[in-house]
Amino acid sequence: MSPLYLRVISFYMPIDAPDRFAFTDALKRGLYEAIFRRRDIREFISDPIPDEVLARVLIGAHHAASVGFTQPWDFIVVRSREQRRRVKEVFEAEHAKNAAEFTGDRRDKYLSLKLEGILEAPLNLIVTCKPDRFGPAVLGKTSIRDVEIYSACLAVENLWLTTRAEGLGMGWVSILRNDALAEIFAIPDDVIPVAYLCIGYVREFPDRPILASADWAQRLPPKSLIHFDSWNDASARQSPAAESLLAKIDDHSIWRAIFPKDSPDKPPSQD
Amino acid sequence: MSPLYLRVISFYMPIDAPDRFAFTDALKRGLYEAIFRRRDIREFISDPIPDEVLARVLIGAHHAASVGFTQPWDFIVVRSREQRRRVKEVFEAEHAKNAAEFTGDRRDKYLSLKLEGILEAPLNLIVTCKPDRFGPAVLGKTSIRDVEIYSACLAVENLWLTTRAEGLGMGWVSILRNDALAEIFAIPDDVIPVAYLCIGYVREFPDRPILASADWAQRLPPKSLIHFDSWNDASARQSPAAESLLAKIDDHSIWRAIFPKDSPDKPPSQD
Repeated sequence: MSPLYLRVISFYMPIDAPDRFAFTDALKRGLYEAIFRRRDIREFISDPIPDEVLARVLIGAHHAASVGFTQPWDFIVVRSREQRRRVKEVFEAEHAKNAAEFTGDRRDKYLSLKLEGILEAPLNLIVTCKPDRFGPAVLGKTSIRDVEIYSACLAVENLWLTTRAEGLGMGWVSILRNDALAEIFAIPDDVIPVAYLCIGYVREFPDRPILASADWAQRLPPKSLIHFDSWNDASARQSPAAESLLAKIDDHSIWRAIFPKDSPDKPPSQD
Repeated sequence: MSPLYLRVISFYMPIDAPDRFAFTDALKRGLYEAIFRRRDIREFISDPIPDEVLARVLIGAHHAASVGFTQPWDFIVVRSREQRRRVKEVFEAEHAKNAAEFTGDRRDKYLSLKLEGILEAPLNLIVTCKPDRFGPAVLGKTSIRDVEIYSACLAVENLWLTTRAEGLGMGWVSILRNDALAEIFAIPDDVIPVAYLCIGYVREFPDRPILASADWAQRLPPKSLIHFDSWNDASARQSPAAESLLAKIDDHSIWRAIFPKDSPDKPPSQD
């Protein structure tokens, strides 16, 4: 039992405050800046990426969460022009298929968009998933299929955030065919290509997502995506607890300490 | 054409340095701290999460990347004890199935691990995916199925990083059944439950992943997961470019500017 004076001190000092592991506002800011300033990039400059930067980004990806700590990802660093030329051909064929799904103005707009930077970017990176890395039994996997693929996606988001912090743009090219990628890169049958990424420095990071500026789609209001205790929550969302949370979603002052008003950098756009 | 003196200045001033959009080392640190200190948490304390914090975390999740800017995620905020009790029952049944996949010591170890905090955590959060939010045609979706689910996973990693920065623990409970979740939460047929998350403050953030400390699995050496231009890269990985990158992976000095040696905070564990 600690002496009384220590217990009195600990009563007054919030050493056991529940949020005692929270980062400082300055550290939080680094993370939120990466999240809000991240963009899906398709225009690159050719300057090479220093190995030191690429190493940090890959180590960051490897520290994503994974089901049962399976770390199911591998990373194929693609610099070969020949390999990239073959990928670009696959893209062209899939792109034509994708365009055919739209009609009229929507199709014209689709065709006006640049959707990849396979040859321009100095680096392409493939994130794969090997579900059976540690055998077929996986802690955390029962009825929900694909949990290891979900883990590989978490690594992709780490890549997106760290590349942004390092000043690199990244774009995910999903207009591809996995069987073709498997052939081009000799990916074994038990490994699934998850993400084909283009990475490089950029001329600019747009303020808004490219597809928002192009008026392809707009950011949905976050409140419209939040439900309470059930998908059908007409009554629950009128509870004081729900209303209080929804009010905070629209309250810009929740960012004030992390992005101080008088900072030379304005809070990043939330568009 | 700009006057000669301006061209001379721009030659000497790296205003066009390729990495001019890189964050400061201090801001990078906030992101990398979140990545390295993030843990899969299954032990929570009951203190409530302030609405302001939860609002920031949800807005951060909503700013993940998504295929064709589809923003396919929804978030069900679950506080109801009755709903959570039903989820816990589903977990118990799936947990028994998962345990049965292991034998001997491995099974004993499995059974000794706490794998969820459904009732202890003050908040459960379900991330879902609605692939057809903007209709069946999706920019970026051709032959690769599930691209919208991948996007929803990116939002989950944002949640994991922002909760960590806010001092909150988060754990992903995948030992569940989607049909049961759909029933409990009235999730429509065209919406897929992707992640069932427990979120709350913690007594501690372990230095190492819980499954590493429990000797269930160890962090793989990152170099073993990196390939060059092909999965089978025996010769490519002996190129100077490959060797240079692999050397940086093991070179702790690549972190020095971001985690200065003489800082009171040591660089976070990379275990």
